[in-house]
Parts: sequence; structure tokens; C-alpha cells
Amino acid sequence: MTNPTEPTQTQPKLARTLTRDLGQLEGQMVKLQGFVHARRDLGGVQFVVLRDKTGLAQCVGSHLSLPLPESSVEILGTVKAHKKAPGGYEVQVESMKVLSAATQASPLEIPKMEWNVNPETMLDYRYVSLRGLRERAALKVQGEIVYAFHTYLRSQGFTEISTPKIVSAGAEGGANLFKLDYFGEQAYLAQSPQLYKQIMVGVFERVYEVAPVYRAEEHATSRHLNEYLSLDVEMGFIDDEDDVMELETGFLSFAMERLGESCAAEFELLGASIPKVPQRIPRITLMDARALVTEKFGHQVGGKDLDPEAERLLCQHYAETEGSDFVFVTKYPRAARPFYTHADHQEDGSLNPDLTRGFDLLFRGIEITSGGQRIHDHAMLMESIDAYKMNREAMSGYSEVFKYGMPPHGGFAIGAERLTAKLLGIANVRYARAFPRDRNRLTP
Amino acid sequence: MTNPTEPTQTQPKLARTLTRDLGQLEGQMVKLQGFVHARRDLGGVQFVVLRDKTGLAQCVGSHLSLPLPESSVEILGTVKAHKKAPGGYEVQVESMKVLSAATQASPLEIPKMEWNVNPETMLDYRYVSLRGLRERAALKVQGEIVYAFHTYLRSQGFTEISTPKIVSAGAEGGANLFKLDYFGEQAYLAQSPQLYKQIMVGVFERVYEVAPVYRAEEHATSRHLNEYLSLDVEMGFIDDEDDVMELETGFLSFAMERLGESCAAEFELLGASIPKVPQRIPRITLMDARALVTEKFGHQVGGKDLDPEAERLLCQHYAETEGSDFVFVTKYPRAARPFYTHADHQEDGSLNPDLTRGFDLLFRGIEITSGGQRIHDHAMLMESIDAYKMNREAMSGYSEVFKYGMPPHGGFAIGAERLTAKLLGIANVRYARAFPRDRNRLTP
Repeated sequence: MTNPTEPTQTQPKLARTLTRDLGQLEGQMVKLQGFVHARRDLGGVQFVVLRDKTGLAQCVGSHLSLPLPESSVEILGTVKAHKKAPGGYEVQVESMKVLSAATQASPLEIPKMEWNVNPETMLDYRYVSLRGLRERAALKVQGEIVYAFHTYLRSQGFTEISTPKIVSAGAEGGANLFKLDYFGEQAYLAQSPQLYKQIMVGVFERVYEVAPVYRAEEHATSRHLNEYLSLDVEMGFIDDEDDVMELETGFLSFAMERLGESCAAEFELLGASIPKVPQRIPRITLMDARALVTEKFGHQVGGKDLDPEAERLLCQHYAETEGSDFVFVTKYPRAARPFYTHADHQEDGSLNPDLTRGFDLLFRGIEITSGGQRIHDHAMLMESIDAYKMNREAMSGYSEVFKYGMPPHGGFAIGAERLTAKLLGIANVRYARAFPRDRNRLTP
Repeated sequence: MTNPTEPTQTQPKLARTLTRDLGQLEGQMVKLQGFVHARRDLGGVQFVVLRDKTGLAQCVGSHLSLPLPESSVEILGTVKAHKKAPGGYEVQVESMKVLSAATQASPLEIPKMEWNVNPETMLDYRYVSLRGLRERAALKVQGEIVYAFHTYLRSQGFTEISTPKIVSAGAEGGANLFKLDYFGEQAYLAQSPQLYKQIMVGVFERVYEVAPVYRAEEHATSRHLNEYLSLDVEMGFIDDEDDVMELETGFLSFAMERLGESCAAEFELLGASIPKVPQRIPRITLMDARALVTEKFGHQVGGKDLDPEAERLLCQHYAETEGSDFVFVTKYPRAARPFYTHADHQEDGSLNPDLTRGFDLLFRGIEITSGGQRIHDHAMLMESIDAYKMNREAMSGYSEVFKYGMPPHGGFAIGAERLTAKLLGIANVRYARAFPRDRNRLTP
């Protein structure tokens, strides 16, 4: 029963248009919604740059009362081609409604923020600094990587699992654990889902998990976080660690292709390039890698692993000689790997007491993955627990399942923030996490 | 440089066949890998029921040395039609290789386990009991629900986020929090990503998260867990809570359709049915719902909400009258909702001090979702914090962002385990989580 003499509404029910779609709507009336990214009042004419999740749109009108930046607004207007506007179009405003007014000026000028300008301030005001185009681009890219992880692994027959983060003991042996009171019992935050993903191989054969993990490391570096998002994989019925490396190569190829489709604008904004993943990522044993950086670059490598400089040089070598941003470092010595890592075989078929089937993946100068084949034989696991001078009793919650026919298996874990940071050239991994936790930061 | 006189391998390099595909391979040689689910030695002939992630296969051979149940094996053999075998086919074994022998008998007979038989024992030995067909079916269904959540929300323009689980204060006000020492500071495990998902609406407009949350509830019930997987959504630029309920309806339709495609066997195994999601899920205000269960069923409802019996009766009503397993209960009173819930409007357009835009979704007799529109106006939020007798200072980490133009927004959260349990008719929510944590259980 509509009454034809009723006044027409000033804001007709129009579906929302996203700024990225303006180019297809020239001459048409559109409804935009978003945030006041920037504004300028030239007296007779006002400009508003509206920001929505897909980009920016220049809007121009007259007699507009401009709210503070970051206010949420709804704009009705007509799309016109305009060479100087971002994207080549602007919206001539018919009306602007303030949906939610900012009540004070933002502590950071969102359009003018730059990486590494006042980094602590950027983190203190993370709840607004994340609205910056570069900041949110990093998190969007990370979201795409995670979704590619889901999609690819499911296509390979993996089942997603959810394992406890409150645990009674640490999977890696006990150092660097956050302690927790669990109804009067001592508990810890899980450093990794290692034990649980291995158990789940006995259930679903191929499993993965995307979840936070915790490291109570005291030191503050540009590559560590105390809470980070771990992309974890574990697969059963493998021949050896090659199967694991092949799976990871497949995932990375798939993910980089997806990023090319969905995040080209974000990479361009950040001046970063999407790496090509070779069909076979170069592989080098740790021993050969140490020799290579000494011989080619004169760098003496300390410790039993690669130090950060050696990682950088090794990656430089493979970028120069094979054009690869990735390299697998294989056959880690036992002393540099956790107790559950499977020993490598010697030429005569017997187990090598010194070398393992553990590997790292380096990318653009830094380790982004640890992985390997795990011990599946109960007797071998017991020997390893003894050799690492660990307590059989304390590890029984872990070791018990290996009495029940665990198949040969292996897996890997990728730190989502570290991969994102290296992909985008972000110097500090904290900027690849929405609300990072570090030694001095528990808020926001 | 192959040498034609070399002996042929006894185990030719054959790709693995999954048990679900046997029906397409009659007469062919296949390689199966899996666990010894059951075994039987009739002297001249031996039977092995092999279990892999896709099902069971009866394998029959002679002179087989049978390893303990749960051992991992690889079987080469020929597929034959056999009416009495599960699936209608059996494999005539040519050779069987033990990949990993169980070294002792399983504490639970996997093929004979039933729901609710020795529930505590089932949880004590979770690392093997999860291999049971019914147990793993529950977790597979949950994995499918979670993947449907990712897929559907991305199709609706949502971005996945990862927010901190170590926080400085509770989002719901402070009760039921696990305490943590964070480098000498008092910290808590997050009860919900509420604050953070709201902040992220200012960044990506539409966001979701799949992550564990924590409730330090002392009481043990069949519907609560101390750690559970929360499926969280928050969306900006909404008109009101109807937009949120429509989105949730869309997700549920999509998820149930997906389950029909991928998990029909699991529902059949558990004797459960996949519900139809009506295009418009019935809605009733809380006040009307309370009146209805009193008038129709004579049940007096205590408190300000619905009690468990009222939830059951209300669901019974909608199943009988509208054939719907779902019902939205809307317009919750302020006293039954958290401080951040948006007030409802009265007929004259002013805010109603007593009613909110909060809703619950009930499914088969139990609440599986809380949701609603949130307060986006800073002044209104301050008034609400005062009205709830909360401390403005303590809440400033939450309230600060509302000074910067937060758009009208709302969202919901679904407990993944509770939804899974109700879908499958699992009486206790603990059996819908791989490794549940409760008042008395911190292991395995």
C-alpha cells in the first residue's frame, strides 16, 4: 500500500559499490561506504578521499560539511572519468551521510605513515595504524597465504585439526615455555603442535593445523615473536623427507600463484616482488652449505647450524647461480635437531648416528621452515630420549603412541609472519602480525 | 643406464590406492597402506581388515604372518568382487609388508569401541581411541565445517585475521580467565577475540577468525570445554543485527550442503541426519520465547535468559510447527548481554534502555551461537561501561578505538565442538574435540 504522494527518500536503497569497481560504472549513481582517508576544503569545493577495503576513491562535492579523518561515511554520487584521480575516476557527491564520526583526530596521520617511522608509536596505536594501506596490505597478504595453505592441503588429502595450546609439558624439551596455572596444576602454552600432529597421523594420515604457538624467548630480535601463527603439516606413509620437501614445494608454488592473482596491488604498493618457485627447489646438505659459504665468501660459520650471515650468503649464492629465492638445507647433524628427528641412513643401509633427515627451508636470506622425517619406531625413540639426556618418564605422554604402529611420517612448520615479512620486504616480523607480543608488549 | 638382467623388485613402484576406490579397480593389482584394524587367522587363510583414512578393506591371504592390531602395513594384492566384504570388494593379498609394528596390544579394541563406553578411558587413551571410526568421523565433520566457514566467508568478502590469545584484560569483563605470567606481568588467556575482531572491522570491514579460546570455568558439564575452537565473525557497515543473522543463515546453508557432499558416510555411521536450513530461520524475541514455553509446555523459565530446558522446549516447538532445527532468539534484555551490545530502538526511534540487538541461535535444543549488533558510538560505549559498573580506565584499551569512526557493525561466534556434537548426536562436547581440556584433564 505505497502512497504515491509520499516524498521520495533522499537516500534510495542502492546496493553498495566498492571503490575498485568504479571504473565499470562511469556515469552511474553509486553508493560508497568507507572511511575518510583524507579531506580538503577549498571553500567552494570539498574533496574527500574515501577508503574502503578495496582501495581509495576521490569524491568531490560542494557545501559538504567534512567530518574528521577516519569517520565512517556513506556517499551517494555519480562516477566521472578524471585522469588525475586515483584509479582514473572520481565521484561527484550528491550527498554524504556520516555513519560514525571520529570524535578526535587520529594520533597518526594514516595517509602519511611510512614503514619504520616511529615503530613503537605505530605499535602503540596499532588499532588505528593498521588502517594504513601498507600495514593492512601485509595482513591481507598473510590472510591469502593462510587460505592457500588450507586450499592446497585439502587438495592433497589433508584434514585440518585443532590441538591443545594448554599442555602439561613442552614438545621441544621444556625451555622457553610460558607457565600457566591450570586449576592448581602447572601447565604451559604449547611451543608447537609437534606431538599432537604426530598422533593425528595415526588418525587421518595427513593433517595440518593453523594456530598460534608460544615461545617465551627473552631476547628481542627483528625475526622472533613470542606469539606467532604456525602453519603446521604432518604426513604419514612417506618414504623419507623428500616427500615432505616436495609437498612444501607444491604448496609454495600454489601460494605464490594465488598471491599473483589476488595481491598484485599489495605487492606493488610495498615495492615487493612475488618469487618464482622452481619446480625443484635447490638442495644442499648442511655440511656442504657450511663449506660453500666459507669457500665462496670467506665466512667462517660458528656453531653446528648456519648463522644468520651464512643463511644470507647461501641464499645470495642460489639467487645468483640458479635464480632461486629458495634453498633447502638438508641432513642436519643430530646435535642441531630435536630428539624426535629421524636419523639418516648410511650407504650400507644402517642408521647414521650423526646425521638426521631434518631440513630447513631458507628464503631470501632467512630460515622460514624447519621440517624432516620423524622417528616412528618406539625403540628408536627411547634410545633418542636417552641420548638427549631427557627423562623417559616425563616424555611418556609423548612416547606412548609409538607403541601402536605409527607409520613412517614427517612434516614441517612455517611461521606465517616471517614468511609474510620476507615476501614483502618488511624488516621486522612484528609488522607482519596484527597485535604482536614481545618482551615489552602485552597491549594493545 | 638400467641393466635388464637386474632382478625385478618384489614390491613394484605402484601408486597407493585408497580403500574407497577399490570398487573401480576390480581385477587390478593395487597397493594399499594403512593400519591393521582387525585380523583373523583361520590356519590356512588369514584375514586382515585394513583401515586407511577413507575406510576399511578386507584383505585375505595365506601364509601371512599377522602383526598386532594397529600396526602399519602395506599390502599388494588383486581386487575381487566379494558380496560379504565391506564395500563389496576384497583384496587377495600377494604380499604384505609391515611398515611399523605395534609393540603391544592397544589398550582399547578399536573396532569394538562404542560411544560412552568408559568415557574417561576413551579420553585417557585418546591417542589411540581417536583411531576409532566413530571418533574420527566426528573430527572429520568438524574439519569440514571449519573449511566451509573459510570458503563461505571468503566468498562474502571476508578477510581472515589472527589475534592475540595472550591479553592484558578479559573482553567479557574479567571472570573465568586463566592467568599467566608474561615476563613478570599479569596476563590472561583470551576468552574471545571480541575486542580485536571489532578493531579489525576498521581495517578490513569484514573479518573472521578460527582459533582457540579459553574459559576457566570450574564446573564440568556436558556442554562446556575449557579450551574450544571458536568460529568468529565481525562485519561492518550493517543496518542492524538482521544482516548478521542473514550471514549466519547463509553460512549454515552452505556448510550443511557441503557436509552432504563430503560427509554422508560419517553421518550414516553415527546415525545422524544433516539438518535442512530454512531460507529464513524462524525468529522469536526472548520475551515471546519465554512466554511460549510457559504457555505451551507449562515450563516456568528462571533467570533473565532461557534455561537449558526452555531451550530444548523452544526447539521442540519449532521442529514440530515449522520443521526447523534452528531458531533465532532475538532482542535479549540488557541484563543478559555484555556491555558492548547495541541497544534496540523503540518505535519512536529512541534507544530502548532495556532491550538489545543481541541474539542467540538455538539448534536441536541448545544455544550454538551468540551474536548481535555492537555499540560503535564512543559516548554510548562510555555510558554502557558506567551502567555495567565497569572501570573506564581498565577498559580504555578497548574503548579508545571507538573515537575513530567505527562503522555500525556486528558479528557472532560459533563453538565448533558444540555445533559438531549437536549435529552428530554426541552427548558430551568433549568427544567433539581431539584432546579436550576440562577441570580434571590436562593430558594427553
